[in-house]
Amino acid sequence: MPKGVPEVIPDDGLTTRQRRQLPVLAVHTGPGKGKSTAAFGMAMRAWNAGMDVAVFQFVKSAKWKVGEESTMLALGDLYEQTGRGGPVQWHKMGQGWSWIRKNDETQDDHAASARAGWSEIARRIREEQHDFYVLDEFTYPLHWGWIDVDEVVDALRDRPGRQHVVITGRYAPEPLMAAADLVTEMTKVKHPMDAGRKGQKGIEW
Amino acid sequence: MPKGVPEVIPDDGLTTRQRRQLPVLAVHTGPGKGKSTAAFGMAMRAWNAGMDVAVFQFVKSAKWKVGEESTMLALGDLYEQTGRGGPVQWHKMGQGWSWIRKNDETQDDHAASARAGWSEIARRIREEQHDFYVLDEFTYPLHWGWIDVDEVVDALRDRPGRQHVVITGRYAPEPLMAAADLVTEMTKVKHPMDAGRKGQKGIEW
Repeated sequence: MPKGVPEVIPDDGLTTRQRRQLPVLAVHTGPGKGKSTAAFGMAMRAWNAGMDVAVFQFVKSAKWKVGEESTMLALGDLYEQTGRGGPVQWHKMGQGWSWIRKNDETQDDHAASARAGWSEIARRIREEQHDFYVLDEFTYPLHWGWIDVDEVVDALRDRPGRQHVVITGRYAPEPLMAAADLVTEMTKVKHPMDAGRKGQKGIEW
Repeated sequence: MPKGVPEVIPDDGLTTRQRRQLPVLAVHTGPGKGKSTAAFGMAMRAWNAGMDVAVFQFVKSAKWKVGEESTMLALGDLYEQTGRGGPVQWHKMGQGWSWIRKNDETQDDHAASARAGWSEIARRIREEQHDFYVLDEFTYPLHWGWIDVDEVVDALRDRPGRQHVVITGRYAPEPLMAAADLVTEMTKVKHPMDAGRKGQKGIEW
């Protein structure tokens, strides 16, 4: 674990305090497990610090990861009831983004749906609507060319205030990794499904 | 993401259902970030499935990761108050294990304190006291030879019932990885501290 002592002092004209307050853009990529799970772990930490947390899942089927969703929403409820932590929102592409009408034509077009998701996120970032964003599996629509990587990188680089963003998924495009402050690659060394085991509730989702 | 379809069907005489119920031993190792964070993310998921969660931190100073601790304990409180999720315990070596008297001589001897921690965990595992264990940074006392790796592997291999265990930290010993069902290596690609930035609340702890 880093002990909070930087190896070099950068020549960026900022004080330590200013540098400490810089917003973080993190990317979790690679073929191993733990990319999303670590992002939700970070969201727990952000919640505890009183941040406004918003999760956007770019997955076709949102059957997976219901465990994290339910737990994060429980933390959101706790905030509503007691003021402990911060507010939590959870949005899923799979069931149609909550801000899009159910009969909208983008429902059956995954590329259009992904673009509609990003467009809303970009708007929220410009308006500083949240403190901590998880864009779960957002690398896939970028990798597939559904959403323009340069447009995303520009929007993230120019984001106002102190908004933290964590992006997960395989095949993170190079310009996104170049723009990130923190990139971690999760490598699969061994997985129970290799041995023919199926996923189980509480462990896999 | 794995879609729940095993690549091979093992010849182990178990039904799919029996195989699905097998307890998981996971190891998060490597020099990158996200090892502990992903373990706590898994703990969130286990909590949501109603599991009894216990975290044991093998760190000298437990100043780090207070965010996850506070959030997990908030979830434990929610369980006590509403029955939602499962119970949560959080134990730290740094401040002396809660089950050891404050004046115990192991307080100033980290190796003895680590052994006392493992001894208690081994007892709880034998008695099936919890459903989901996080042994955070447990690889270090193993790596340093403070605790016998073979003893740990035997205790984990022989654990009764359906107890899931997640172990985090660098330098995971080979016999532990061999015994694990799931090993993920987190590789550092880029870290903000490389650029002279210090850690910040809600992000680093």
